[in-house]
Order: sequence, then C-alpha cells, then structure tokens
Amino acid sequence: MENGEHDIHGYDYGKAGVPSSPVTLEELQHFKISAGFTDDTERYLRMAGVVLAPQAPAIVQKWRSGIIAGIPHLARHSRAVNGDPRPGYLAATNLRFVQWIEDTCLRTYDQSWLNYQHEIALRHTSLKKNQTDGVESTPFVPLHDAVAFVAVMNQTIRPYLATQGHSEAEVEAMHAAWCASLQLQVALWLRSYATLANPTPEL
Amino acid sequence: MENGEHDIHGYDYGKAGVPSSPVTLEELQHFKISAGFTDDTERYLRMAGVVLAPQAPAIVQKWRSGIIAGIPHLARHSRAVNGDPRPGYLAATNLRFVQWIEDTCLRTYDQSWLNYQHEIALRHTSLKKNQTDGVESTPFVPLHDAVAFVAVMNQTIRPYLATQGHSEAEVEAMHAAWCASLQLQVALWLRSYATLANPTPEL
Repeated sequence: MENGEHDIHGYDYGKAGVPSSPVTLEELQHFKISAGFTDDTERYLRMAGVVLAPQAPAIVQKWRSGIIAGIPHLARHSRAVNGDPRPGYLAATNLRFVQWIEDTCLRTYDQSWLNYQHEIALRHTSLKKNQTDGVESTPFVPLHDAVAFVAVMNQTIRPYLATQGHSEAEVEAMHAAWCASLQLQVALWLRSYATLANPTPEL
Repeated sequence: MENGEHDIHGYDYGKAGVPSSPVTLEELQHFKISAGFTDDTERYLRMAGVVLAPQAPAIVQKWRSGIIAGIPHLARHSRAVNGDPRPGYLAATNLRFVQWIEDTCLRTYDQSWLNYQHEIALRHTSLKKNQTDGVESTPFVPLHDAVAFVAVMNQTIRPYLATQGHSEAEVEAMHAAWCASLQLQVALWLRSYATLANPTPEL
C-alpha cells in the first residue's frame, strides 16, 4: 500500500482533515456481524488484495471505460453538467478508485478506515462532490445508482480473482469476502448519506 | 406461484390496497441498467426459481433460526420489545419471506412488483412495521442492517442453487442473477426508506 499513495491527488486516507464517521467502531462491529464478516473474511480479503492490486488499474478501466461510459445516467457524473468530457476529472477519480480497491482488501477496518468511508460517501453527495478536483459536474451521485452498480462490480471482479492459480474454493472465498466488504461499505455509505436528510436512525 | 399464496396472511401482492412505488417503471429500467440486470439475468432467475422454490422454507429456516436467531440486534425485530419471543409473528413473517424468494425469481418486474417492493420496504419502517400482524415489536428495521444482511443471504443461498445437478457455469449464472436482483431491490428499498426523510433525490 506504499506504492505512491501519497502522490494521489485528494487521497486523504488517515489525514487530519477527514471528518469523523457518524458510525462508531462498536456499530461497525454490529454491521460486520449483520454482513457475516468474520476473521476468515478478512483473511480472504488480504489474499484478494495481493491478487487484485496489480490488476486494479485494469479493473477500474473496465468499470469506467468498459461499462459506465456506455451508461449515460452513470457516465454523466464524471462529465461537465452539459455532458462534455472532463478527462482530467475522470483520470483523477480513477486513481482514487484504484486505491479504493487496494484499501478494500488490504486496510485494517479501524477508525481511519471508517472515517475515510464517510469521506468517500460525502464526496458523492452535494456536500463534497466536485470539490476535491475543483470541477463543475453533477452535484451528486444518487446512492441508489451506486448501490445498484455494486452488483456489476461484484460480478465483473470475479475473473480477476481467478488469474493467479488459486483453487476454485479460494477464488470463491475471496469473492465472497469482497462481496461482504462491499455490502458493509454500502451500509456505511447509507449512514453517511442519511446525514443529509432529517437525522433518522431508520436508514 | 399458485401454491397457496392467497392463504398467506398479509401477502398483498397485486392487491388494490398496496400503495404505488415512488419509483417509476422508467426509473426501474435505469436501476436495472446500473445493476447490469439483463434479459439473461431474468432467464437465470427463472431457472433459480425452479431450483429454489421447493427449498425456500428450508432456506428461510436457515436464515431465521440458523443465523438471525443468534444475532441479538437482528433477532429483536421478530420479538416483543422486551425481548420475549413472538413465535406467531415469526411464523407469519417466515411464510411471507418464503414467498419473497419465489417472487424474486419468478415474478415479472412490472408495476405490481414495483409496488410490492415498496410495501415490503415500508413494512420494515415505522410507517408499517408490526401492523400487518398486529404485534408490538421494534418500531423499525434499520435499513443498514437489512443491507448488510443481504451479503449473508447472497452467500448462503449459493449451495441451494447447486442441488439440482446444474453445471458450475449455470449455478454461477443463477447466483449472479440472484445477487443482481437483491442489489436492485436494495436500491428500491432505499428509495422507499428515503420517503421517510426529507424528500431527497440523493438517496
């Protein structure tokens, strides 16, 4: 994880300016239990991280250029409001997207991770979208679209897990761990988006 | 799907009293695209439905008695507020849970399905929880817990898909279709829960 993360513009993981998550570590523990996230999940995430890290740029390329680019209601979030391409913005967020794959697999899910989850979520809302990169684009990404797209990320990442000669059972376990982490993250993003609405414990 | 569904207390699929979904059919189309939900997904969901329908009671039994019962912060939603068991309530919701597995796989995702998705979501919120069964239990299920538990449902349903001699590729495709549907449903429930908060398009 030390391969140049500090050179990524706007990658503020662990930095002092990152706000605290509305979710406590104790609540995170509950979320993990709800998602069936165990020590084994963590072990297989680490294994997945070793497999995915070198492929992460290609994975993000596939998601962004291979899939999202062909879906106007998703692609617009990396474009100017009038639909013009913003290649600089796209490239900057792609770098952080790549880093997120690594963080998902290789980071310890502690307070820093929790806080940066919150920061990631807020950067998709009207509170913070576009600010990091100083662009004018859509004011927010509707959470329901991000949630739905998780199905695509989960599905398309599987072949990348099978490229390093692991057994079918290991690939399956790495994939399940990835999916559990993403569902956990969706639950956390939900709490972050919920801070935009009337404070409600129901979300 | 005609095997006694009309005998299930509170199963109001397609009935006049079910409110309209806040999501239009056109928006559903966008949600499906975001989730990578295609005609193929639908085809494999049908295949999964044939495999899962006879096993659905056992699957719900596993989820409810085998997993949720051991997780206090989830189990409480089927109990009295003081924690006392409410076996009648549990049994009634189990029957609808079973039916939901079938509906997920075998229903056409049309306006009736969309409306009933909304009804299902609302029945987990303070607007409608407990009413159908006339019980006093927790006032709502936090959506983040339901979202997290989807990871467990996705993971634990896989072996049931492999019991009927389908090829590994077919099992994999049925599983991917199931997961895509659940992610789509999470996105819809999110819109339903969002109606509780300040109306915000961000959720």
